[in-house]
Amino acid sequence: MSAGKLIGVGVGPGDPELMTLKAMRALGEADVIAHFAKAGNESHSRTIAAQHLRAEVVELPLLYPVTTELPKDSNDYRNAIADFYDGAATAIAAHLDAGRVVAVICEGDPLFYGSYMHLHVRLAARYPTEVVAGVTGMSGCWSAVATPIAQGNDVFTVLPGTLSENELERRLEDANCAVIMKLGRNLPKVRRALRRAGRLDRAIYVERGTTANAASMRLTAKLDDEAPYLSMVLVPGWEEPV
Amino acid sequence: MSAGKLIGVGVGPGDPELMTLKAMRALGEADVIAHFAKAGNESHSRTIAAQHLRAEVVELPLLYPVTTELPKDSNDYRNAIADFYDGAATAIAAHLDAGRVVAVICEGDPLFYGSYMHLHVRLAARYPTEVVAGVTGMSGCWSAVATPIAQGNDVFTVLPGTLSENELERRLEDANCAVIMKLGRNLPKVRRALRRAGRLDRAIYVERGTTANAASMRLTAKLDDEAPYLSMVLVPGWEEPV
Repeated sequence: MSAGKLIGVGVGPGDPELMTLKAMRALGEADVIAHFAKAGNESHSRTIAAQHLRAEVVELPLLYPVTTELPKDSNDYRNAIADFYDGAATAIAAHLDAGRVVAVICEGDPLFYGSYMHLHVRLAARYPTEVVAGVTGMSGCWSAVATPIAQGNDVFTVLPGTLSENELERRLEDANCAVIMKLGRNLPKVRRALRRAGRLDRAIYVERGTTANAASMRLTAKLDDEAPYLSMVLVPGWEEPV
Repeated sequence: MSAGKLIGVGVGPGDPELMTLKAMRALGEADVIAHFAKAGNESHSRTIAAQHLRAEVVELPLLYPVTTELPKDSNDYRNAIADFYDGAATAIAAHLDAGRVVAVICEGDPLFYGSYMHLHVRLAARYPTEVVAGVTGMSGCWSAVATPIAQGNDVFTVLPGTLSENELERRLEDANCAVIMKLGRNLPKVRRALRRAGRLDRAIYVERGTTANAASMRLTAKLDDEAPYLSMVLVPGWEEPV
């Protein structure tokens, strides 16, 4: 029996219509659909793809053993998460060894800040593998608010909100345009860094960009509460029309 | 008569299958399809979308009066290109005033380094406007070579090859992962900057990422000739599996 195929399938930022034709085809061809989720929660990627899953497809939920319960820089977290990815890769490999096509569906783009990459590095050297690019969460967000983000010779940068306030300020001053992700409890710090970098007035807060529950506003109008999963701050570079 | 609607439609990085369902719907609804091209050349976005254009749709080619004939920082270039965008916006506005839906089709994502933005800033305040996010050229490229680009708390940056060698070196040293665009005649300089930043060995050269003419290789294996349009260098951040 020949080995199956692994496909990392980007299903886009949230709106099911932002799935690509290629993602649709992969969903139609796959024998097994794998998706990551926090235990007890619906998988975001599964929600996006739900209406296109075949009735007879085998589903393989991959449930994170920990998310925010342990500090991410602790050995306990690292070990738990590495064991989890090892086990997930083993479960997928069993399907691939049986000749099945396994699609790992991923929010956004699989190779851009996606959990899929942890499976990819464990499996791609051993099995036929394909990656289907997807619309990223950030593209979904700036399109939802119809805000040009980068043009011409702009330097664009993606910053995690976990950086220190000084680092955020320095990097915001050093880029023409930026996106800040991983807001959560970092929102007050991100706001201070934007103010110090002189970019607060132009910053736009977007949550759940292309979904039915989307919300967006000037960051100056957003309360300093905890920003939900799938929220980000856009710092557009565009100043004026040419 | 009510005004029509302007839709900026991302058609993705090159492979027509990487168009979204939403882009397909916009192409089906549009009365007019506008696309940018260099005079005498086929529009890249039109090539991508060609098989999905309705037979009776009105096409509005927007032909750049200059591309590389004049220095981009010259007043002559600025004036010529501003006049061109003004004229293009006026032509589209005439269709919108007549109640038509105009889709401006764009390679990649409309608001990420796209010419569409020049029309958007001229028209979006005056007409109902929608933007359909697309898969970016860079997502297409790193997916084509199945190379994880950014993970976890990585700082990711997009750099134009037009920056000075020192600037490129400094910014490459300051980011976990990067994409360098606008290679063209900048390729030897980009290579030197990557070497000085200690990132040359991991850099991957990709041209025409997801098209039938795609090519990719380690940058160390690429000659220092002139890189074509739609080529880029990927500098992955991923070092090892968790």
